[in-house]
Amino acid sequence: MPLSPLTGEERELLIQRGLDDKYRLACQARLGGDVVVFVPEATRRAKQIIRKSVVERATAVKRAIKKYYVELPPPTLDKPIADSELLIAELEHSFGLRDLSIDYPVLKELSACLRSSEWKATVTVWMKHQIIKVEPGYVDKIYGLAIDIGTTTVAGYLCDLESGEVLATEGIMNPQVAYGEDVMSRITYTTMNSDGLATLNAAIVEAINTLIVSLTKQIGIRPEGISEVTIVGNTTMHHVLLNISPEYLAKIPFAPTINSSLDIKSRVLGIGLGESANAHILPVKAGFLGADTVGVLIAEEPYNQDEVMLIIDIGTNGELVLGNRQRLISASCAMGPALEGAHIKFGMRAAPGAIEHLAIDRQDLEVRFKVIGNEAWDMPPSPIKAVGICGSGIIDAVAEMVKADIIERSGRFNTKIHSDRLLNNNGYPEFIIAWASETTLGQDITVSIGDVREVQLAKGAIYAGSRVLMKKLGVTKLDRVVLAGAFGSYINTENALVLGLFPKCELEKVYSVGNAAGEGARMALINVDKRQEAEEVVKKIEYVELSAEPEFQNLFIDALQFPELNI
Amino acid sequence: MPLSPLTGEERELLIQRGLDDKYRLACQARLGGDVVVFVPEATRRAKQIIRKSVVERATAVKRAIKKYYVELPPPTLDKPIADSELLIAELEHSFGLRDLSIDYPVLKELSACLRSSEWKATVTVWMKHQIIKVEPGYVDKIYGLAIDIGTTTVAGYLCDLESGEVLATEGIMNPQVAYGEDVMSRITYTTMNSDGLATLNAAIVEAINTLIVSLTKQIGIRPEGISEVTIVGNTTMHHVLLNISPEYLAKIPFAPTINSSLDIKSRVLGIGLGESANAHILPVKAGFLGADTVGVLIAEEPYNQDEVMLIIDIGTNGELVLGNRQRLISASCAMGPALEGAHIKFGMRAAPGAIEHLAIDRQDLEVRFKVIGNEAWDMPPSPIKAVGICGSGIIDAVAEMVKADIIERSGRFNTKIHSDRLLNNNGYPEFIIAWASETTLGQDITVSIGDVREVQLAKGAIYAGSRVLMKKLGVTKLDRVVLAGAFGSYINTENALVLGLFPKCELEKVYSVGNAAGEGARMALINVDKRQEAEEVVKKIEYVELSAEPEFQNLFIDALQFPELNI
Repeated sequence: MPLSPLTGEERELLIQRGLDDKYRLACQARLGGDVVVFVPEATRRAKQIIRKSVVERATAVKRAIKKYYVELPPPTLDKPIADSELLIAELEHSFGLRDLSIDYPVLKELSACLRSSEWKATVTVWMKHQIIKVEPGYVDKIYGLAIDIGTTTVAGYLCDLESGEVLATEGIMNPQVAYGEDVMSRITYTTMNSDGLATLNAAIVEAINTLIVSLTKQIGIRPEGISEVTIVGNTTMHHVLLNISPEYLAKIPFAPTINSSLDIKSRVLGIGLGESANAHILPVKAGFLGADTVGVLIAEEPYNQDEVMLIIDIGTNGELVLGNRQRLISASCAMGPALEGAHIKFGMRAAPGAIEHLAIDRQDLEVRFKVIGNEAWDMPPSPIKAVGICGSGIIDAVAEMVKADIIERSGRFNTKIHSDRLLNNNGYPEFIIAWASETTLGQDITVSIGDVREVQLAKGAIYAGSRVLMKKLGVTKLDRVVLAGAFGSYINTENALVLGLFPKCELEKVYSVGNAAGEGARMALINVDKRQEAEEVVKKIEYVELSAEPEFQNLFIDALQFPELNI
Repeated sequence: MPLSPLTGEERELLIQRGLDDKYRLACQARLGGDVVVFVPEATRRAKQIIRKSVVERATAVKRAIKKYYVELPPPTLDKPIADSELLIAELEHSFGLRDLSIDYPVLKELSACLRSSEWKATVTVWMKHQIIKVEPGYVDKIYGLAIDIGTTTVAGYLCDLESGEVLATEGIMNPQVAYGEDVMSRITYTTMNSDGLATLNAAIVEAINTLIVSLTKQIGIRPEGISEVTIVGNTTMHHVLLNISPEYLAKIPFAPTINSSLDIKSRVLGIGLGESANAHILPVKAGFLGADTVGVLIAEEPYNQDEVMLIIDIGTNGELVLGNRQRLISASCAMGPALEGAHIKFGMRAAPGAIEHLAIDRQDLEVRFKVIGNEAWDMPPSPIKAVGICGSGIIDAVAEMVKADIIERSGRFNTKIHSDRLLNNNGYPEFIIAWASETTLGQDITVSIGDVREVQLAKGAIYAGSRVLMKKLGVTKLDRVVLAGAFGSYINTENALVLGLFPKCELEKVYSVGNAAGEGARMALINVDKRQEAEEVVKKIEYVELSAEPEFQNLFIDALQFPELNI
């Protein structure tokens, strides 16, 4: 028999997930011969075009790295001056650079390089004090990279450091997901396995190097052409990248090993760029408030605003920042990956085929949707068919179901509604978003009661956390709400309000800004003042440990309901 | 075939010892022609106690490294401060250390270390700004290492950084001699072999690591206990250690790649000390005036003297420095290894059994000598018998032969002398220094006409170079002469004058100081001001390329003769 029969346990697990017996679990089924296996699109790991897109904010270019072209007087028998001394003297003489040092790997090739180009060379200098590259002749292009390491996805932005422009963007999955979905399970993996940290570290370093190869290919340069990288990520990702055990991040009082920013040669981390390229790791605040949130902060600059802002960075963990130039407080809450499209029956990451937005007609409950890869809503000529639903689509779906009264404020399905889009899967109701004919799956794409529950848990945590922060800060009203996160698309702010993702705020004062963490990394890449701002905001901002706030649990339970609608 | 092929038995024995087939066993290999054999240091019968001894000059201790004991307040839920921040804040608060950074490897172990010792730790800080080690609890000892890489020998001095005291000293052969006796042949090896530089680099790094293991064993510590190393060596040794091609050192205008001092993590060079230990490489002046001479300079401080000093550093290359606080000029000359005991018929390095001093009676030509390992001259009770003659012995031997009229001023043997100590070896005369019965060799130890010629070439080069420098500086008289070098013993200054090793100087103003290069490295290790002095003297001193001085060859030929004696 090519395939072992369905086990009892397997059948139960499948039913729980609303899957029929055409599905098998890889952990249960045993192969005894040739079998054709179809891996559901949504669970494939290959080439997920995760759009961790950044809004390119206008940023003054004040980069850490500059190139200088020099022509040196060769040494003579009368003055057999060392090559390094000639070079440093010329850079001081012509460009006023003082106290320059030469990074060691550059030294090894210096003499051959200078002699190969008749003493004409282009010198790359980092932070006005270290020579990190010497190239023969005249070279003008200069590249940098910003990386955002998410628990689930890793995004890279390859930039022209001269103009500050983003030349190429790419997102890939964080291969660490194989060792745990969220940071707690990753931390557990490192403590339960003697080589756990090394394994997770190797996984993320390899992912970053894959990303680099892909990004540089897009614009036809080599990885060695990149002279600096800035990196953000939550504190667990941060520690694991640095090969620092995250063990204590999961133990009271959740203190990190290091919080200040780090400048470290990318070669030390195993990141394959120019041999002397610097990796600037942005600072972290606390065990659960990482460099990703710091990236959001320097992108949004609440410390420069009078308005009281609530910034919500939605990922597998949600981070909250509340305040203005007077005071800033912050918190982190485990919200699950539902809003990233994971733990959802037909959830998927933002990739071609993902339903990223949808609307439900309140009368006939007909659904219109937009699929990533198609220019327009619904089914345009030669359309890309739907494969699943990504985070922004899930928010729309649940909000639209609330507005159309398909689900009640409690999250239960409204039993009074009758529609052929409503299914009952062994007592678990589902609502059909896309008919089988509109998909590549050969089956309907639905939103199940389980999916609604996942969304409720996520938005409840964020809402309750926000209320705790508002009380701490002594405000009852939000002047502005900023929704950040690596969504497939910017989330529909009205629908976020409908869900009760955050306390009330005027709709025109709610902004959806995409991956602000990555944008912060990009801004720090092209402007060193932003690195200073990051250090300062880490000192300024206060962190509230929600698990130590007795009120949080009550608020959370209350916040599971959807708010009353006044539309 | 000069060498018989590897036998099966031999191969097996080599494998058992973990040696590759570049090794041969003396009991198996058969010679059929000329072969260069390198005997691994570890298997030499007599441990070569190469006495690169230093005169320990009184040096103020102002070391680059200090230890601080701290007790930290653990983080709390209210203040979940990062471990690094706690540590840095405490060091600033209690010891006034500002702007501290933490070397990356320290960071990796920091949290576990602090928690293992209930937040009590000893912190090692380098140059008041970088934390290079954190140890649980209270630790007071602090060690450093000074290394002198000679072309032929490598010497190490393990020091207590608290007191500045030398705790252990050891010299081993530079294994690079297998690839060439002098720096020119080593450079040629790197240019003729694609992996030549890597091979020479690996050889010296391995030798240094062997030295470190041996030194630390002597005082019962581990190599990781050493927190800093200072290194001197000629420019070729310097470049090869840094994995920088020495190719251009051998090409006009003989300019080095780098001349300034370097601080580089010893781990980057492959030197096995504490993971964050700094290697301070002293600066070089020119392609043939290296960090070893800089070591001599900071040990002797001619730049602080009014007297016009001639410093001669005798090695396989001889370096000369002339001047005083007004002006310093320098030169280098190839003098061959005769005064190191090599290229001499019965020459050997300073080790037990070496004749290090001798005297010849002018009447009966009887010889008295002192052997390393014996307390007294001649043959004391239960003496160590003679094995060969080391550098200081060669100087004595030739000088005494001159004084006893055994050799003429031209270097020829005096044919009028009759003694049973005089041999004629196929037309090449020899003089017997030690009878077979006084040796372990079973044969007489002699000084041959060839040995005398080697000494003439060496002293002629030094004398001629000295004259060129004196003319450049415009002086006709030397106020003081300092003889430095890694001799078996301090050389007899009167005999050095008899040979004409340097221009005339009052005998009581001639000093023999031993390995001043190594002493300079030691002084730089325990006093950072000496590092600054080294940088300054490199800028101040002028270098004269003797090969570009037309006068040098004439002076050299004249200087081959021994001077007229006025004793």
